[in-house]
Amino acid sequence: MAASLEAIRYRRGSLAILNQLLLPEQLRYERVDGVERAWEAIRAMEVRGAPAIALVGCLSLALELAAGAGPAGDAAALEAFVGERLRVLQTARPTAANLGREAERLRAFVRRRARSPGLTARGLRESIIEHIEGLLAKDREDNRRIGAHGAQHILQRVPEGGVTLLTHCNTGTLATAGYGTALGVVRALHGQGRLARVFCTETRPYNQGGRLTAFELLHEHVPATLIADSAAAAAMRDRGVQAVVVGADRVAANGDTANKIGTYQLAVAARHHGIPFYVAAPSSSCDPALPSGADIPIEERPGQELTHLQGLCLAPPGIDVWNPAFDVTPHDLITGGIVTEWGVFAPGELREALAARGAAGGQ
Amino acid sequence: MAASLEAIRYRRGSLAILNQLLLPEQLRYERVDGVERAWEAIRAMEVRGAPAIALVGCLSLALELAAGAGPAGDAAALEAFVGERLRVLQTARPTAANLGREAERLRAFVRRRARSPGLTARGLRESIIEHIEGLLAKDREDNRRIGAHGAQHILQRVPEGGVTLLTHCNTGTLATAGYGTALGVVRALHGQGRLARVFCTETRPYNQGGRLTAFELLHEHVPATLIADSAAAAAMRDRGVQAVVVGADRVAANGDTANKIGTYQLAVAARHHGIPFYVAAPSSSCDPALPSGADIPIEERPGQELTHLQGLCLAPPGIDVWNPAFDVTPHDLITGGIVTEWGVFAPGELREALAARGAAGGQ
Repeated sequence: MAASLEAIRYRRGSLAILNQLLLPEQLRYERVDGVERAWEAIRAMEVRGAPAIALVGCLSLALELAAGAGPAGDAAALEAFVGERLRVLQTARPTAANLGREAERLRAFVRRRARSPGLTARGLRESIIEHIEGLLAKDREDNRRIGAHGAQHILQRVPEGGVTLLTHCNTGTLATAGYGTALGVVRALHGQGRLARVFCTETRPYNQGGRLTAFELLHEHVPATLIADSAAAAAMRDRGVQAVVVGADRVAANGDTANKIGTYQLAVAARHHGIPFYVAAPSSSCDPALPSGADIPIEERPGQELTHLQGLCLAPPGIDVWNPAFDVTPHDLITGGIVTEWGVFAPGELREALAARGAAGGQ
Repeated sequence: MAASLEAIRYRRGSLAILNQLLLPEQLRYERVDGVERAWEAIRAMEVRGAPAIALVGCLSLALELAAGAGPAGDAAALEAFVGERLRVLQTARPTAANLGREAERLRAFVRRRARSPGLTARGLRESIIEHIEGLLAKDREDNRRIGAHGAQHILQRVPEGGVTLLTHCNTGTLATAGYGTALGVVRALHGQGRLARVFCTETRPYNQGGRLTAFELLHEHVPATLIADSAAAAAMRDRGVQAVVVGADRVAANGDTANKIGTYQLAVAARHHGIPFYVAAPSSSCDPALPSGADIPIEERPGQELTHLQGLCLAPPGIDVWNPAFDVTPHDLITGGIVTEWGVFAPGELREALAARGAAGGQ
């Protein structure tokens, strides 16, 4: 198997991201030298995927801290500096929930550490950098666990032979620190020699499936077939799809899930065909403070994403467009389960599972 | 209301088609001078939509006949000539059922006429041209009836106020001789002041919804909103869609319907939301000789339609693609009915309705 692509290349003092706007035509890494450049990259969608956005944002701050930015001698001033840099980052994409969550966690961490008796400003700076570096390792590790749990759950229903999956959008190495969430499940099955094929939807209007997922899977020689978003139900019926696995931008306490537009339609089609539907997401995407999907705001993006493509005109100028970036899949359609780093939960079990492990919304 | 666009401009001795590959950027008519040019235009999808394909094919033959092509003095030789030209046309797009049907009907007509006592070869030639010209007028008239029947049926359930519809692909004036089938229903409701809005799907990979339907509706000031194919279920749930109306490439005797890829997925979503699902098609698209949808061959088109767009690369070269042009919607999901020029039938009533009116498959 070829090495995975990396969306993010980091070592202390150096950060680069794969510019996803240029894929699949060009494989180019861009240097990120601090918070402002990270903000631009997130805003312009050079980097995307909720986990990857959070990581690039936080790492750009670690980079500044390692280079000596901010006040030197005073822990309280350093805390204020970190808070201000995080506020800048959080304005890049308002719906990027993971970045908001990680920023809150980082603030809480800094607040606690800043009050540690005997900790110098220098020691605080070092511990913030280490905290952020730990996020990168944790995301990779969480994704491997998600992949393993999801694969095991799916294989319980398919005792032998290869499994045919269907996935949506991009939830792979390009959306995370590596390995992927829903694509982590695909990778785990492939690694066990149990993946027959994965159908990936094109995912209009931003084509993350065609540009990114197909690119990743082809790069690693995972058997994959690209389909139009419209062909998903036909693939379920006529091409032997056995499970649908998607990612999540945000999971409410009752299991309702906001994810890329089209996820709801896939869940409806999966239910019609009696095919289990899985949401794969780290616990950090689950928000126990959010009672249901009705409370998740849905970003509506410019109609131009649908009417134009790199200068090509795909629809008549002036046509009205409805272009929601996400939709909410109600928990009762998530028939396979919610796959987290802690295991696979039925939507009704999620709240308790999160509470038992001390996950608290926004903390 | 602005005048409708015309896909086909014909008067005896002259045929031009609106080149739909250039829409919405350019409105250009191309001259068609005979069967070979028509074959190319159909193959390349300069003209598309089952009824329009059949009409352009037959009209290109009428054009050749009017220009004196084929044997002059012998009715039997003329019959053979017509048969051979139709065979050429039928190879342009194998699933274009209406062209096959019209070709069969034309062959039967010529066979009968050629045996008429006293008919000269010249008289036969003239009657073939007239038969073909009659198809154009009949298609327009049938579409108006389809529109009226469909609108009336939908309004039975919506006693007052505007109706919100959702449609797929292009079934309008650009797919027919004029007015349209599913878009005929939309036009009829709009004409009665009873259309609140129609959502039209982009219809990947060929974008007929975005390029053509949106273009037609905008041109005629019909309230229309373009959505990604993936957003249809969300529109049904969150935007008040009250009925789905699509066209058909072929309807089997039991009501199973082959239509543009994605139709099946829409029917599944409509069923989930309890929204009536209508297929609008002239009786000539219904084939009583075909017992069910399982007997309809599905054209698979090149993967490049999905991976490339006018020179832009949308997916990595080498990725496997499944690109069926059509899918089959089983009759039990056609909950609104099948709207023909004779009225709206439940799928289970179709066979009898066709038989009662003398429609016989392949005749």
